[in-house]
Amino acid sequence: MKKRFLAIAIAAGLTSPLAAQADATVYGIVHMSVGTQDTGTSGVDNWTVESHASRLGVKGSEDLGDGLSAVYKLEYGVNPDGNGADDDGITRRNQYVGLKGGFGEVRVGRHDTPLKMAQGKFDQFNDTKADIQGTLSISQGENRVDNAIAYINKFGDITLGVALVPGEGNGTTGGDGPADTTSIAAMYSAGPVFASLAMDSYDDTGAAAGQTDGLMRLVATYTMGKMQFGFLMENESANGGVAEKDVMGLSFGMGMGKNKAKFQYMTGDDDAIETTQMSVGYDVGLSKRSTAYVMYTDGDSENTAGTTTAEYTALRVGVQHKF
Amino acid sequence: MKKRFLAIAIAAGLTSPLAAQADATVYGIVHMSVGTQDTGTSGVDNWTVESHASRLGVKGSEDLGDGLSAVYKLEYGVNPDGNGADDDGITRRNQYVGLKGGFGEVRVGRHDTPLKMAQGKFDQFNDTKADIQGTLSISQGENRVDNAIAYINKFGDITLGVALVPGEGNGTTGGDGPADTTSIAAMYSAGPVFASLAMDSYDDTGAAAGQTDGLMRLVATYTMGKMQFGFLMENESANGGVAEKDVMGLSFGMGMGKNKAKFQYMTGDDDAIETTQMSVGYDVGLSKRSTAYVMYTDGDSENTAGTTTAEYTALRVGVQHKF
Amino acid sequence: MKKRFLAIAIAAGLTSPLAAQADATVYGIVHMSVGTQDTGTSGVDNWTVESHASRLGVKGSEDLGDGLSAVYKLEYGVNPDGNGADDDGITRRNQYVGLKGGFGEVRVGRHDTPLKMAQGKFDQFNDTKADIQGTLSISQGENRVDNAIAYINKFGDITLGVALVPGEGNGTTGGDGPADTTSIAAMYSAGPVFASLAMDSYDDTGAAAGQTDGLMRLVATYTMGKMQFGFLMENESANGGVAEKDVMGLSFGMGMGKNKAKFQYMTGDDDAIETTQMSVGYDVGLSKRSTAYVMYTDGDSENTAGTTTAEYTALRVGVQHKF
Repeated sequence: MKKRFLAIAIAAGLTSPLAAQADATVYGIVHMSVGTQDTGTSGVDNWTVESHASRLGVKGSEDLGDGLSAVYKLEYGVNPDGNGADDDGITRRNQYVGLKGGFGEVRVGRHDTPLKMAQGKFDQFNDTKADIQGTLSISQGENRVDNAIAYINKFGDITLGVALVPGEGNGTTGGDGPADTTSIAAMYSAGPVFASLAMDSYDDTGAAAGQTDGLMRLVATYTMGKMQFGFLMENESANGGVAEKDVMGLSFGMGMGKNKAKFQYMTGDDDAIETTQMSVGYDVGLSKRSTAYVMYTDGDSENTAGTTTAEYTALRVGVQHKF
Repeated sequence: MKKRFLAIAIAAGLTSPLAAQADATVYGIVHMSVGTQDTGTSGVDNWTVESHASRLGVKGSEDLGDGLSAVYKLEYGVNPDGNGADDDGITRRNQYVGLKGGFGEVRVGRHDTPLKMAQGKFDQFNDTKADIQGTLSISQGENRVDNAIAYINKFGDITLGVALVPGEGNGTTGGDGPADTTSIAAMYSAGPVFASLAMDSYDDTGAAAGQTDGLMRLVATYTMGKMQFGFLMENESANGGVAEKDVMGLSFGMGMGKNKAKFQYMTGDDDAIETTQMSVGYDVGLSKRSTAYVMYTDGDSENTAGTTTAEYTALRVGVQHKF
Repeated sequence: MKKRFLAIAIAAGLTSPLAAQADATVYGIVHMSVGTQDTGTSGVDNWTVESHASRLGVKGSEDLGDGLSAVYKLEYGVNPDGNGADDDGITRRNQYVGLKGGFGEVRVGRHDTPLKMAQGKFDQFNDTKADIQGTLSISQGENRVDNAIAYINKFGDITLGVALVPGEGNGTTGGDGPADTTSIAAMYSAGPVFASLAMDSYDDTGAAAGQTDGLMRLVATYTMGKMQFGFLMENESANGGVAEKDVMGLSFGMGMGKNKAKFQYMTGDDDAIETTQMSVGYDVGLSKRSTAYVMYTDGDSENTAGTTTAEYTALRVGVQHKF
């Protein structure tokens, strides 16, 4: 699926390709959808063309001997739909250099937090209009952070991820230590079962008042034949002006040959507003790298008096191609 | 000319390269010129170094079986000369994902309008200082648009291109339908003859007053031995405060071994200002991928009283390299 | 070390790889460090994660026959640590198209000045926190400029570099000629000796008052067994409100197997402030492409009364990987 540039050594001498040192891989995803969305307030179905988490990256590794290897990734978000300050559509995704060995793997740079990684394959609508990260901001903790010093290792069936993030606040806002923010996750995977527990902790010394100082996430998925059941639970700590918030999600997917029917329900409650989102979709597998789909998502926010404060529906037809 | 990354499959197993699924192609153009330009008003020959439509892209396709294939392109304008909000020089060009089959090809993303594509090979100074798109804004319709849903198919000698563009105006400015702007072109190509007819139609519901609501373009080129003759005609509709505008162009090129002498004349008239541009050039073919050239262009705007309102001349020496 | 894409020709026909025309090379460096820095005034050790001159580029050349070839490079600075107007971290580095032949090499675009190139391998802390370009702005002349018309040729042991840079000021600021700024360098390299002399000259017609109009640099390095000794000297001309400034530097490196111990001392004096920077470091060679290191740098600025006006220390552990 991933293409690797063959070292010129191969070209020049037809030496064994397996001995090729070079292994820079150019990879990416182009994912566009067409459809309507209705924010309720405007009362119209607005037709849009959108890009969803399209990306382009270069990655690779080098065998350093003695079981040690150097790894790197430079991944960019791209946006055929346009956005951003200068409209080139380019944003930074995971970008790091690291070392890997018997001790595990250390990566330094911009990286998904372990809490984000802990979602596993819960999200049936990952990287679509109904991604748990996106619509209605139901979800929390879907963070990718600069200045991460991440450690990842596997102990039997458990993968451990830890990220230390300096606040770089120079003694004022954000702290000046090596671990002002931390994110930690333990992910268990064996046979049909995946389960993870993760925690973010923010040292809000000097931070703007009203920021949560912590987050917890629990995820479990279970595979039974062609079906996958998923469960997600989160709790945001109250802190200063920030209310405690609870998030809960259920997901379900059922393979049908190369295709898949899927369903997802997310709900969040911060004691003032209760938000729910329900999504259904059908994926058509064109190949291992290409998928077409149709999906519908419906979001709704209510206050404690039961009055609707926000509404959102979207019907999308999309194509996602990985290279 | 285009390089393709060989799938790791080849590296790993020396399976037949022809069976390689992966075909991401990195390609581009670096095109720089050195020379003088004089805007008339300043009265000086200002020496400049410039980049002309230099670009860098990744593209590819995947055979999905049954005559169906997935296609994608992520092309960026690059600018060794610098520009843009954050001076990285990067802009978005054609960027899309699509499906191709017996029914034709559908592409979704950012794309040249069919009306732009209808220019064929008329423009002898394409991607230079005298591109019909550029100097003195003589030309219209040279648009690349976001949110395009484009359809391209071939019927015998005729290629049909249609683009539907949602206004994404959410019921206010720009419309909220799936086809608030449309561009359509029919291009005939047989033997020495190329001829095309194209039309843009803008639904200006809610648009800023004073925008044209339509554009028509007619192009024809004829090849006789080493010579090519070209003709282009355009009409912009009057609408609100916008005057009708007519554009006409003639182009001529004559191959001389690997080199080419060329000439172009463009004129536009909106009843208030008449603009003309005359360009001559000589290309030196260094290879199929590399060209050096020298060119001169002279532009002139006059009002109805015959008074010159703007002047422009440029003498450029350039090198263009494709990879 | 550099990977080349093999031409599709190889894939399709297994023709001789050596005959492949295409040679676009994707290359880059990912270089991150973790550590503390203390600006003295804040009185704290601020932990940071930083990227140092990380980059990603495409380059290549084409044989045009008769000893002539076309060359190009599109190199971007990338920043896993984030920065810039739109935070994509992307900046332009050397980007040009050129022609190479018996006459030497001409490159047009964005390019290091020959004076910058004249540093040779003096800088033991090149592309780190203690790069002569960076900390405390001790150094001058480390310029990469737009609009460069550069000429590079080798005469025996001497490499000559000349860059002409139009001011593009259109008759007002910055000049309008083809060589408003020039940079020229002569670099001698034979056996253990490298020595260079370089000069920048700025035509400040119309420039903001208080800009120097010239710079001179002298560099020498000498290799003795596993040791390298380096010497650098610079002088900035006084002009208008700008004081004359002198810079002097000494560097030393000693190979120890695959590792290297290194030391550097830089000092600058503009008659008002005297700045010094001292750096020590130890590189661990992981492979030809990967290096880990630890380094410490200490900078200090004093006025003529002997009062410290600025202080700076940094202790960094880093990994640099080239691909």
